[in-house]
Amino acid sequence: MYDLVIIGAGSGGYEGALYAHKRGMKVALVELSPETLGGNCLNKGCIPSKYMRYGAYMLERLGKLPEYGIHIKDYELDMKTLKEGRDRVVTTIRENFKRLAEHIKIPIFYGRGVLKDPNSVIVEPSGLELETRYILIATGSSTMPLGSLVPDGKHVYDTDQVWSLTQFPKKILIVGGGAVGVEFAYIFRMYGSEVLLVELKERLLPSSDIPEESSRYLARKLKKLGIDIRLKTTLQNWQIQEKGVKVALSDGHEDAVDFILLGVGRKPNTEGINLEALGIEKDGKGFLRVNAFCQTNIPNIYACGDVTSSLMLAHKSMYEARVAIDHMLGEEKMKRDEKLMPKIIYSAHEIASVGLTEDQAEEEGYEVRVGVSSFVFNPKAMDDGENEGFVRLVVDKEDQILGCHILGPNAGELLHQVVHLMKANIKVDFLSKSIYSHPSLSEAIAYAGMEVQFGPLTWAKRH
Amino acid sequence: MYDLVIIGAGSGGYEGALYAHKRGMKVALVELSPETLGGNCLNKGCIPSKYMRYGAYMLERLGKLPEYGIHIKDYELDMKTLKEGRDRVVTTIRENFKRLAEHIKIPIFYGRGVLKDPNSVIVEPSGLELETRYILIATGSSTMPLGSLVPDGKHVYDTDQVWSLTQFPKKILIVGGGAVGVEFAYIFRMYGSEVLLVELKERLLPSSDIPEESSRYLARKLKKLGIDIRLKTTLQNWQIQEKGVKVALSDGHEDAVDFILLGVGRKPNTEGINLEALGIEKDGKGFLRVNAFCQTNIPNIYACGDVTSSLMLAHKSMYEARVAIDHMLGEEKMKRDEKLMPKIIYSAHEIASVGLTEDQAEEEGYEVRVGVSSFVFNPKAMDDGENEGFVRLVVDKEDQILGCHILGPNAGELLHQVVHLMKANIKVDFLSKSIYSHPSLSEAIAYAGMEVQFGPLTWAKRH
Repeated sequence: MYDLVIIGAGSGGYEGALYAHKRGMKVALVELSPETLGGNCLNKGCIPSKYMRYGAYMLERLGKLPEYGIHIKDYELDMKTLKEGRDRVVTTIRENFKRLAEHIKIPIFYGRGVLKDPNSVIVEPSGLELETRYILIATGSSTMPLGSLVPDGKHVYDTDQVWSLTQFPKKILIVGGGAVGVEFAYIFRMYGSEVLLVELKERLLPSSDIPEESSRYLARKLKKLGIDIRLKTTLQNWQIQEKGVKVALSDGHEDAVDFILLGVGRKPNTEGINLEALGIEKDGKGFLRVNAFCQTNIPNIYACGDVTSSLMLAHKSMYEARVAIDHMLGEEKMKRDEKLMPKIIYSAHEIASVGLTEDQAEEEGYEVRVGVSSFVFNPKAMDDGENEGFVRLVVDKEDQILGCHILGPNAGELLHQVVHLMKANIKVDFLSKSIYSHPSLSEAIAYAGMEVQFGPLTWAKRH
Repeated sequence: MYDLVIIGAGSGGYEGALYAHKRGMKVALVELSPETLGGNCLNKGCIPSKYMRYGAYMLERLGKLPEYGIHIKDYELDMKTLKEGRDRVVTTIRENFKRLAEHIKIPIFYGRGVLKDPNSVIVEPSGLELETRYILIATGSSTMPLGSLVPDGKHVYDTDQVWSLTQFPKKILIVGGGAVGVEFAYIFRMYGSEVLLVELKERLLPSSDIPEESSRYLARKLKKLGIDIRLKTTLQNWQIQEKGVKVALSDGHEDAVDFILLGVGRKPNTEGINLEALGIEKDGKGFLRVNAFCQTNIPNIYACGDVTSSLMLAHKSMYEARVAIDHMLGEEKMKRDEKLMPKIIYSAHEIASVGLTEDQAEEEGYEVRVGVSSFVFNPKAMDDGENEGFVRLVVDKEDQILGCHILGPNAGELLHQVVHLMKANIKVDFLSKSIYSHPSLSEAIAYAGMEVQFGPLTWAKRH
C-alpha cells in the first residue's frame, strides 16, 4: 500500500515523487519505459532544445568577439557532435534521476499506468496492481497532426522527431511562430540553415500574456539574422518532391524546403488510462477538471501539468505536483496559479514574462502604471556586449505588481526576482529600497521599479 | 541655493544625484574633471574590468564549443581592439550620464569640492561657491603604495595604471589574492599571459564573509587554467632588470616577470577638502564616522561609499546615497546595511556572497542550518556546459536566512533573489512555495532552500 502512486515520470511526476518523499510519503512512479523517464521536457522538449540553443547563442556571440580582441579565423559546424553532446546531457539527467530514485527507494514501475479504481493502479501489460491512498495523474501531452500535415519524420517533422536529425538542413519551413517555432528558427538559422517561418496571427508569440514589444523586438532580430518571417500567412499546399518538399504559402510565395517542422499542436494524454470508467471529469479538449488544489472530482485523485490546462510548461507541472501533495497532507497554503507562472522563451532573445501585460491589466479594469528600463544603458549588459532589450513592470495604482516582462540577457533568470516579489505580495516601492550589485543586469529591474515610483526621467527613448 | 551638493560624481554621487532629482530636490554635483566623472568604478574599476573579464570568459567558453558542434580552427588575440572596445564602453557610459544630467538639469561643476562651512562648498581652483542645505561627501578612495612597492606604471602597476597597457604581458606577478587579484589573474591568464599570484593569507579571497568553499573552488579552477598560486607567501625582494622585474618570494621561488600588479591597498579620499576644519569626525584609518542614516556628526553633512568604511563597493555607495537622501527628506525607513551588501567576484568562477557565512553565523551564536545544492545536477547549467558550483544557504533555527553564497554560472545575478528575500525578511520555507521556471539556474536556489526545510536527500556528494 502506497501513500501515493504517480502516473507519469515527467517533470511533474518526478519532481512530485521527490517532494512527496521529502514530505515523508511512501511513493511510487509509473512510467512507460526507461527511455521516456523524464517525460517530454527532458527527452523531447526544453532540455535538448536549450542545449542546441546554447550552441546557437554562442555562434551569435562569436560575432561580438573581435570587440574583445578575439579574432576567430575560421570554424566548422557539424551536427553529429552537437547531437552527441545534447543526447549525453539528456541521458545524464535521466540516469541521475534513476540512481537518485533507487538510492532513496522510490520504485519506478515501467508500463502504462491504468486506473482500476480510486485506490488502485494497474501497470500494463504486466498487470501488476499498486494499491494506494492517493493518485497523481501526470501523464503529460503528445504532439498531434495539423490538418493534412501528418508528421512522418521525413518530410514533415514534429518536435518528437526533430531530434533524430544528423545533419543541418539547407532550408526548412517552420509552421507556427509560437515559443517552439521561434526557438527552432533561431537554432537552425544560427547553424546555417535557411529558415522560412509562417505564423497565422499578426505577430510572433501571438499569446495575450506576452507583450507586443517582445514580439516586435524578436521579429526584428530574427529578420536581421536572415530569417524569412511571414505573418498572417499559412501553408496552403505542400507536395513531396524527389528531394524535399515544395510549399505554397497563402501569400503566394512558393519555395522548396528540405522539410516542414511543425511548431504547434499538442493534446493532453488523458485517454487510454480508464479515466472515463472512474467518472473523472474532463473538459471538451480532454483536459482534466481540477480545483485550486489540483484535485479532480474524485477526491483522492489529483492531476498536474499538461493534463490540467493548455499552459504546457514543465514548471507548471512541477509546481502543481507540490500543490497536490501539500493538499494530500492536509495543507492548503499552496494553490494552482497560472498567473504567476513564468514563461521563458529562448530564441534570438531571451524573453521572459510573468503575470499580466499592460493590455491585459487594462482589460481587467486596473488603473495601470508601467515602468520601463532599457538594457541599452545597463553597464553590465554593455560590458557583455549584449545590451538590447528591456524590463517592463506592470503595476496598479495601489503599487501592486501585476506583471513583468523582460527581454534581454538572462531574462529568464532575472524574472525570478519579480516572481518572488509577486508571490510574496511585495509592492513595487520595495525595488528602490533593496540592494543591487553594480554593475549587474538586475539593476535594470530596480530602475523599472523606480520609474513607476518616481516617474520617468523622460530622457531615454522608451524602445 | 541648492537642496543638496554632492562632492564626487562616482557611483554613489551620480546615483545619489539622480535619486535626489527624482525625489524633487535641487541638486548639484562637484567632480574633479570631465574625465573622472563616474569615479573609480566606471573609469578604473568594475566597468572596464568586467569588459575584459567577459572576453576572458568567452575565451574559456571557446574550449566548450566542440561539444556544440562548433569547431574553431584558429584565433588570434590582440589587446589593442580589446582596449578600444573597453574604453568605448567606459566613454559611452560617461557621456550618457553627462547628457542625462544636462537634460534633467543637474549641474556638474568641475574642480575640487572643498567644504567652507556646513552650508557651502567651494569649487577649486575657480573659487565658485555653492550654497546648499545638505552636503553628501562621495569622494571615494585612491590606490596606495604597498611598502616599497610604489606604482610607477612601468615595473609596478596599480589598478589605476593597468588600463594603459597596449599589449598582453608575457608573465606577471600579482600581489594579493583578493577580489582584484583573482579577477586580473583570470583575465591575463585567459589572454595568454603567465600569471604568478601571491597571497599572504592561507587562502584566496581571504575575507571572513566569503566561505572557504568559494576560495577552494576558485583556487582549483585557477590552477587548472595554469595560474601559479602561492598562498602564505609574500614578495620579499624585487629588482628592476633591463627588461622586466626580478622577483623573490618568501617561499624561496625566484622569477622574472614583465611587471608587478598590485591588487591590494586603497585609502578613503577624506583629506584636502577641509573636513578637519569643520570638525567632521574620522576614525583612525581616515573613514568618516556616520550613523545608520549616513549622517556625519554635522547633521546636514552626509557621506556614502568608500569614505564610510573599508567595504569599498560601488553599490554600497549607491545604496548609501539613497539612505542619506531619504533621511534628508525626513524618512527613516532605509538604513545602512553592510550585512546585506552583495559581494560579487568575477574570476574563473562567478562568486557571489551576501550575509553571514556558516562560520560567521556560528560565531555569532546562531544555531546554524545549511542547505546546499549543486549546479552539477542543474539541467540548465548542464545545457549551457557550465555546471560547476553550488548554492549555499545559511539559515537559523527560526528559518531566517542569514546568508547565501553562490558560485557558478550567473551567480551575481542569481544572488539578488536571496538579497530581496533577506531584505524583506522572508523565511526559507518560501523557497519551496515559490515558482521557478524549468530548466533554470534559479532552481538551484529552490533546492538549497528545500534541503534546509526538509533535510537532504543524502545522495549527492556535497562538493
